[in-house]
Amino acid sequence: MALVNEHFLKLPGSYLFSDIAKKVNTFRITHPKQDVIRLGIGDVTRPLPPACIEAMHKAVDEMTNANTFRGYGPEQGYDFLIEAIIKHDYTPRGIHLSPTEVFVNDGAKSDTGNIGDILRHDNSVGVTDPIYPVYIDSNVMCGRAGVLEEDGKWSNVTYMPCTAENNFVPEIPDKRIDIVYLCYPNNPTGTTLTKAQLKKWVDYALANDTLILFDAAYEAFIQEEDVPHSIYEIKGAKKCAIEFRSFSKTAGFTGVRCGYTVVPKELTAATLTGERIALNRLWNRRQCTKFNGTSYITQRAAEAIYTPEGKRQIKENIDYYMNNARTMKDGLEAAGLKVYGGVNAPYIWLKTPNGVGSWRFFEQMLYEANVVGTPGVGFGPSGEGYIRLTAFGNHEDCTEAMKRIRKWLM
Amino acid sequence: MALVNEHFLKLPGSYLFSDIAKKVNTFRITHPKQDVIRLGIGDVTRPLPPACIEAMHKAVDEMTNANTFRGYGPEQGYDFLIEAIIKHDYTPRGIHLSPTEVFVNDGAKSDTGNIGDILRHDNSVGVTDPIYPVYIDSNVMCGRAGVLEEDGKWSNVTYMPCTAENNFVPEIPDKRIDIVYLCYPNNPTGTTLTKAQLKKWVDYALANDTLILFDAAYEAFIQEEDVPHSIYEIKGAKKCAIEFRSFSKTAGFTGVRCGYTVVPKELTAATLTGERIALNRLWNRRQCTKFNGTSYITQRAAEAIYTPEGKRQIKENIDYYMNNARTMKDGLEAAGLKVYGGVNAPYIWLKTPNGVGSWRFFEQMLYEANVVGTPGVGFGPSGEGYIRLTAFGNHEDCTEAMKRIRKWLM
Repeated sequence: MALVNEHFLKLPGSYLFSDIAKKVNTFRITHPKQDVIRLGIGDVTRPLPPACIEAMHKAVDEMTNANTFRGYGPEQGYDFLIEAIIKHDYTPRGIHLSPTEVFVNDGAKSDTGNIGDILRHDNSVGVTDPIYPVYIDSNVMCGRAGVLEEDGKWSNVTYMPCTAENNFVPEIPDKRIDIVYLCYPNNPTGTTLTKAQLKKWVDYALANDTLILFDAAYEAFIQEEDVPHSIYEIKGAKKCAIEFRSFSKTAGFTGVRCGYTVVPKELTAATLTGERIALNRLWNRRQCTKFNGTSYITQRAAEAIYTPEGKRQIKENIDYYMNNARTMKDGLEAAGLKVYGGVNAPYIWLKTPNGVGSWRFFEQMLYEANVVGTPGVGFGPSGEGYIRLTAFGNHEDCTEAMKRIRKWLM
Repeated sequence: MALVNEHFLKLPGSYLFSDIAKKVNTFRITHPKQDVIRLGIGDVTRPLPPACIEAMHKAVDEMTNANTFRGYGPEQGYDFLIEAIIKHDYTPRGIHLSPTEVFVNDGAKSDTGNIGDILRHDNSVGVTDPIYPVYIDSNVMCGRAGVLEEDGKWSNVTYMPCTAENNFVPEIPDKRIDIVYLCYPNNPTGTTLTKAQLKKWVDYALANDTLILFDAAYEAFIQEEDVPHSIYEIKGAKKCAIEFRSFSKTAGFTGVRCGYTVVPKELTAATLTGERIALNRLWNRRQCTKFNGTSYITQRAAEAIYTPEGKRQIKENIDYYMNNARTMKDGLEAAGLKVYGGVNAPYIWLKTPNGVGSWRFFEQMLYEANVVGTPGVGFGPSGEGYIRLTAFGNHEDCTEAMKRIRKWLM
């Protein structure tokens, strides 16, 4: 008798975005003349950089001729892309990687979700709270998260609150945790850690034999000097951290699908008897067995991001979004609101005034200002009392939304 | 202390294709003037159909403009592709599927590897032998395969031999097995089951509450009438089978990456307490958590396969490969060899003469005829004494290879 993986049944329905859609729909039907501005969406809106378009047309044309046609590529990604990644994303920061330490994928969600395959099901897990739900859900699915308790937390997961009270800097745990997820610049709060703050985590990991899963999907949005782009800027991190990167937000690849994962050769984890095993070897085996590489055409597009024109073009897009972020931050502050993020990330984390709950403020903002955000509590218990706004919309909408919020609140 | 998933350490190195490459290299260095023909490769060589090229150029151009730009798509795939799949691959065979039963992916390897996520780790597994190694390896990785025994078999896996002795028709097991992998047309043997033969498996599955994982990646190569293209042509199969399809060999998508998986709504598996759970819901949750959809550009290319021009063009490519297969089958038989497959599949399964071992014959063929195949034993114990040849090369090479083999053996 085929048996299901019952851990899946522990997962509560994930209704955040469908609940939002329902509420917005209700408003639209009851207020057909009102124009709603959506600042809740986590997807890019600017078109692909011309350098990527050109590279894709060229790659598509290569597929028309048997002499230039590409079939199966390496599961780990093509050398041309891996070399560009190392040369442009790591070498300039003094980080030396070998090509076999970089694994190209079809987006960071796949790898942040699948990485658990190579780890025992009973490792303990630590997450900052609020958090990107994939980290939790993928651990629930394999039983690693334990059981859901009455307070809405999982029994085998340590939640590290990030709120205005601690300036969004998670406290170093006073106990050992086997695996810790860190996402910086952070989704959803848009906050970052300084080098000194991140170093404390690397030191903790080295002292406790903790594996850090470092999600740097928003690295390209960093504007300030003291914010690390890669965890490997911290000495010793290669011994304790896997880093996930994505072209989704960097270059508008949410529909094109490409990212990469760095698993350093010197990174190990233990067997029950204490033998050290290189995680690079296990991840390579995982990918060779369950993945057949990323589309050749997509990889050529990703390579083009690293050309001089590509770099200039993605910077223009990022500047556009960060200009939105600035407009929003300034507008919200002018309306008397307390906001975080938006400086090194395309996310604004807005504290609701007077302790109003996330969902209540969401509805007020929808009905009074006709602006849609995302209730912070949807990202975890510590998100209660916050709203996430994203800077991925068009600039006119951002400006108009700020006007409306100001008019509503002032 | 982070602990590794120790099941990975049970996996022996997978050296089949690197061992072959090494042996071929050695030959080349010692015989620099000999021209080697490779018939071992499992990758396509014909360029992409023009209809797919055109669709990709168009989709790439859509990404240049904010109004037509596509960001995140549905994790399950775009409706336009799912509708084309149902309309062309299923409806004409009297199979009715709802769009939510089809999941577009980045290739069948991902889903045949990941499907185990939704199933308990201690289900028993059955495989035909020889077999596509992903089925076994992905089960080893989560502990489901048990331990590797001295005879080279995994303790929790039932091997169902497919050899000339049983005409490559696996015997229905005399015990319950929870999960059975069937791949038809078969890789590596190139053989098929008739409807009556496949019906026996569906009946067994229904009687024993067995889940059939049906890999139909080579469906497009079927030429004969009585060979089912989909397991759902058999009554009751929707209650017991998941079907995997791929555009890799159908349309030359090995480097483009697209396939799909069908999980019928009425398919269930049990919890320990006997509750029936719809696998469609679990697979949907798995995909929404660990996958972010297939490239939009790739999905437009896949859609183009179903246009009248696309259909004609992929038929031309398939005819080309099947003509190779015919040439090879005829040539090998004329050389006095016993061959199987090659009628409804691009694989030829060659019985070595006089009981010579797979590796020995591989080397003889390389040194005497300068032709490279794949030793059958690399696909499992029952592959010993066989060689796999593929029809994916160019026609001139196939013809020349047959001449050489004939000259060598006659």
